[in-house]
Amino acid sequence: MVASNRGPLSFALDESGKPVPAGSAGGLAAALHPLLEDSGATWVACAMSDADRMATAEGLMTERGLRLVTVQPDPTTYRMAYDVVSNATLWFVHHHLFDLARRPRLDHRWAVAWDAYRDLNASFAAAVADAAGEGATVLVQDYHLSLLPRMLAEKRPDLRAVHFTHTPFADPSFLRVLPKAVARELLEGMTGGHAAGFHTRGWEQGFLACCADQGVEAPRTFVSPLAPDPDYLAERAASPRCVAAGRRIEEMLGGRRMVLRVDRVDPAKNLLRGFWAFDELLRARPEFRGEVVLMAMAYLSREGLPEYLAYGAEVEHAAQRVNDVWGTEDWDPVVLDVADDPDRSFAALTRYDVLLVNPLRDGLNLVAKEGPLVNTADGVLALSREAGSFAELRDQALEVNPFDVAGTAAVLGEALDMPADARAQRAAALRALVSERQPGDWLADNLGAVVDG
Amino acid sequence: MVASNRGPLSFALDESGKPVPAGSAGGLAAALHPLLEDSGATWVACAMSDADRMATAEGLMTERGLRLVTVQPDPTTYRMAYDVVSNATLWFVHHHLFDLARRPRLDHRWAVAWDAYRDLNASFAAAVADAAGEGATVLVQDYHLSLLPRMLAEKRPDLRAVHFTHTPFADPSFLRVLPKAVARELLEGMTGGHAAGFHTRGWEQGFLACCADQGVEAPRTFVSPLAPDPDYLAERAASPRCVAAGRRIEEMLGGRRMVLRVDRVDPAKNLLRGFWAFDELLRARPEFRGEVVLMAMAYLSREGLPEYLAYGAEVEHAAQRVNDVWGTEDWDPVVLDVADDPDRSFAALTRYDVLLVNPLRDGLNLVAKEGPLVNTADGVLALSREAGSFAELRDQALEVNPFDVAGTAAVLGEALDMPADARAQRAAALRALVSERQPGDWLADNLGAVVDG
Repeated sequence: MVASNRGPLSFALDESGKPVPAGSAGGLAAALHPLLEDSGATWVACAMSDADRMATAEGLMTERGLRLVTVQPDPTTYRMAYDVVSNATLWFVHHHLFDLARRPRLDHRWAVAWDAYRDLNASFAAAVADAAGEGATVLVQDYHLSLLPRMLAEKRPDLRAVHFTHTPFADPSFLRVLPKAVARELLEGMTGGHAAGFHTRGWEQGFLACCADQGVEAPRTFVSPLAPDPDYLAERAASPRCVAAGRRIEEMLGGRRMVLRVDRVDPAKNLLRGFWAFDELLRARPEFRGEVVLMAMAYLSREGLPEYLAYGAEVEHAAQRVNDVWGTEDWDPVVLDVADDPDRSFAALTRYDVLLVNPLRDGLNLVAKEGPLVNTADGVLALSREAGSFAELRDQALEVNPFDVAGTAAVLGEALDMPADARAQRAAALRALVSERQPGDWLADNLGAVVDG
Repeated sequence: MVASNRGPLSFALDESGKPVPAGSAGGLAAALHPLLEDSGATWVACAMSDADRMATAEGLMTERGLRLVTVQPDPTTYRMAYDVVSNATLWFVHHHLFDLARRPRLDHRWAVAWDAYRDLNASFAAAVADAAGEGATVLVQDYHLSLLPRMLAEKRPDLRAVHFTHTPFADPSFLRVLPKAVARELLEGMTGGHAAGFHTRGWEQGFLACCADQGVEAPRTFVSPLAPDPDYLAERAASPRCVAAGRRIEEMLGGRRMVLRVDRVDPAKNLLRGFWAFDELLRARPEFRGEVVLMAMAYLSREGLPEYLAYGAEVEHAAQRVNDVWGTEDWDPVVLDVADDPDRSFAALTRYDVLLVNPLRDGLNLVAKEGPLVNTADGVLALSREAGSFAELRDQALEVNPFDVAGTAAVLGEALDMPADARAQRAAALRALVSERQPGDWLADNLGAVVDG
């Protein structure tokens, strides 16, 4: 069994108000879906919208080879649990994003939202307990469901739950921001299962340090980074839509070199310093003016949260400012594309000269692995040392301190300066590194974590 | 010898443009001055203003029983080293204050400021090397002079330098915000002396963890919290000016109970959540409306930094908002006093019912120790667990999670509810705890740190 906030299917309402499939589910669910196809697994997930709720009622939540179970919290509970706690608190805690002098404001209203988060986890526990066969293994995904492993242990001691964290895990000083009882409840929730997994050693260590700091006994832990599927990526790169999108990108570039980034617009992704660093590069290295374009494929998300609206506006402003300072009649230094166009993003990945992945803190960052697999231009990867994938790719990536704007500019310059043979050598080595793990390894590690536990 | 940014004397210009003593030096220098009076020590410090520079030129920088040596950086160097690096970067790093998605912006301008910081430390090294006798011990104070111990070791290997940090020390993930070479230079600067001291175990551990994270060999470390001088405090409490200020406070209170805070207006001091918590208290506990006053003695500082101007405005707004919501014709719930009136602050310390000390992160917090010594109302100490003094006072203070607004309100309620006998018992025990260390212990620990080193 799998339990995650978002399921493999999502729906939207068409003009007649009928629920219709809404394209890719995105995020984590999109990465896990191929691993579970035809597995016969039961996948428990939330109805996240009215369309999802209607689709469930009409029996549309079905998928070949999977059994889908939908949790249907009332919209207010869901908004408080998902927006206020999961995305505006836990995401910020694990990514160290709070401007601590001002946020969070953990007042009586927040306490109500925490109750909603607990209720939502309890709804999952009820749904899983109801659907699970004797002794089943339950793979619990991410920070939305931190409390679920302990709840399952209490409700159904025969089950074996594995919690996997796809984000970073907070350092002790950031977890201590939460009310003491909440921090303990969170850790005790996660430690109630058979094992807890992370994408990299650093986040595992953070979790263990938090357990020690709060006096909570740690469960078995393991490290298992997700890997992209090379066959799927190759197929997709060859698709007519991607090829067409690639042609349009070539036309736009007009023979110029391309620095690329592909991210959700999220403060953790550090888009601002990407633009500031590009500005520093153009200031320090006049020979690149008119010759290089920073393409930022930056799709908006979580637009219901004021933090994200504000950040989105700052991102647009920072991009525009580079163009105002350095742009010429026939050259926009920065092309910011906030449309969520997966084909275009994917086509750009095949073509970049430099891929800039500079998050402040990132659970893994799958783009840093997908890019090298599909890129055909011997592109260089400039990778934040605070991304989970840095642990795997550090030997063949250029290291970026994401906070250091001048340093990031220097790395971009180094990447653009690199001779063709060095680029080719590095790109080949990077492809080999990325290919060391297969998508199925992650699933095997999760299932294996309960065997001796 | 002692080296610190600020010296024991500071000057201002009178109407005729003549430098005249400017009252108390404030901060760290004020705490160290009594320990060094008549010691015959040489104290090396900066001329921080034109008045200081003129006073030096006119031979006014002299003090009984001390030899004063003044470092005179040019104003631009000083502004970059002191404002940009020390106060707007290192202070923020050690206190975890950055809104990391947006700040700091470590660009080419910041790199110039770092050079200025290095130059200022080098000016100190030259002045100390010039003034120091063979084999002298040099007590280097605080984050303004992180590079001085190594510079001295290179210039004058016969000297024995002890660095003492009066702030918290950053966790590794926050020190990593600095450019890699800068983080290493900083640690190597501090580790170049014979020993490095901290106010509490937690900051010492942070420093050691940073050394390990950056691959820098740690020096000998020690923990030695400063203690206030009970005799000096008693004398001051009995002074006519304090007694008069106390009478005015009593009149203003009109028999109501008093929650007090005394801080610089600094984001680390967490004034906003103090007001939010008081608002929560009045919301949750109607019986306190009209009966309790929050006196906030909050003196402005570092007003040259935009971060402090913005925070100051937010503080005033938050205080005003509580009064707008809950105030009545004859009751202002919050009295915010931004005038730096030490007599008034001191008089308030003798009188509080509850002393709220809720910093986000604080090297020691001497007010948390001074208050219990001079208070005559069996006042309760509500103390942040993130203040250095919490390690010493935790058994007799009420623990505050400074980020938890609802929790802080609950602690204030608990303090106000406490029966008289419990308050008296706790206040006596707290005085005993605070009195366990004497001011001279800190100096002895610092001097002792070089004996076997």
